Amino acid sequence: MGIDCGSEYTGFGVVEEMADRKLVCHTTGAIKLKSGTPMAAKLQKIFVDLTAIIAQHQPEIVAIEDVFYAINVKTALKLGQVRGVAMLAASSSGLQVAEYSPLSIKSAVVGYGRAEKHQVQQMVTRLLNLAVAPVPMDASDALAIAICHIHTAATNRRYQAASR
Amino acid sequence: MGIDCGSEYTGFGVVEEMADRKLVCHTTGAIKLKSGTPMAAKLQKIFVDLTAIIAQHQPEIVAIEDVFYAINVKTALKLGQVRGVAMLAASSSGLQVAEYSPLSIKSAVVGYGRAEKHQVQQMVTRLLNLAVAPVPMDASDALAIAICHIHTAATNRRYQAASR
Repeated sequence: MGIDCGSEYTGFGVVEEMADRKLVCHTTGAIKLKSGTPMAAKLQKIFVDLTAIIAQHQPEIVAIEDVFYAINVKTALKLGQVRGVAMLAASSSGLQVAEYSPLSIKSAVVGYGRAEKHQVQQMVTRLLNLAVAPVPMDASDALAIAICHIHTAATNRRYQAASR
Repeated sequence: MGIDCGSEYTGFGVVEEMADRKLVCHTTGAIKLKSGTPMAAKLQKIFVDLTAIIAQHQPEIVAIEDVFYAINVKTALKLGQVRGVAMLAASSSGLQVAEYSPLSIKSAVVGYGRAEKHQVQQMVTRLLNLAVAPVPMDASDALAIAICHIHTAATNRRYQAASR
């Protein structure tokens, strides 16, 4: 399960790698936070919704973007709050959290670390064989994070097998 | 209940204003986060511990510092994560979250917005009639936030009464 944390939308997407290595999207979407709602209530909605999605789809692991930049400190504090609650939702459900840099995510999905957002969306749509592109962009970003984890985990398995 | 969020220690303190307007400290301390522990596990410890303290001491409201600055974006993201989880602990326990600026907190406790940390600690010790100064500093900072809320709420009540 990939989660894309944001102060307005928090995207999510559950992806499974089948035995034939095909990728299947089980669910995707974004939790919208109403502006004007107190931050504590927003955070509670994110926690409750993510916990329900985890309970329903039983992912093996949660992957999130490892952010080290933000427009400014104020934005970073807000984003951190959402990120903390997303990590807690995973942890409280007994799941580990894997973190991937924006560069790793774009490279894994598009094959190019400086890819544009719409290129990520196009590749996610193709890789998951979806009829329509996932919207909002936060949903497709969350799917990209999930795909990045699957690719990275597969590479790690091959590397470990080769080094035995 | 005041909570002072930090990436190493998260301080807490429960203060009650008695009928004679004396302030009583019911509990104070700090949740220490072991370095090297994964962030998700740290956040879960903060959530579980704060939820337990809220359940035991049944505060009416949770007050936290409203932070708009940080040394850098990376620090702000970490601090935001802890802050988000602290707000969620309050919200999940059915409590509202009040936010106060560092200036308001220092002014309410020391009477001077640019007071040093040790001055805040001294005044907290005196106002709560404690035998020893609360340590670590994060614990005394949390008590200062709780005292700030009590003072502000009292001022607001008087203001409302006067304007009727």
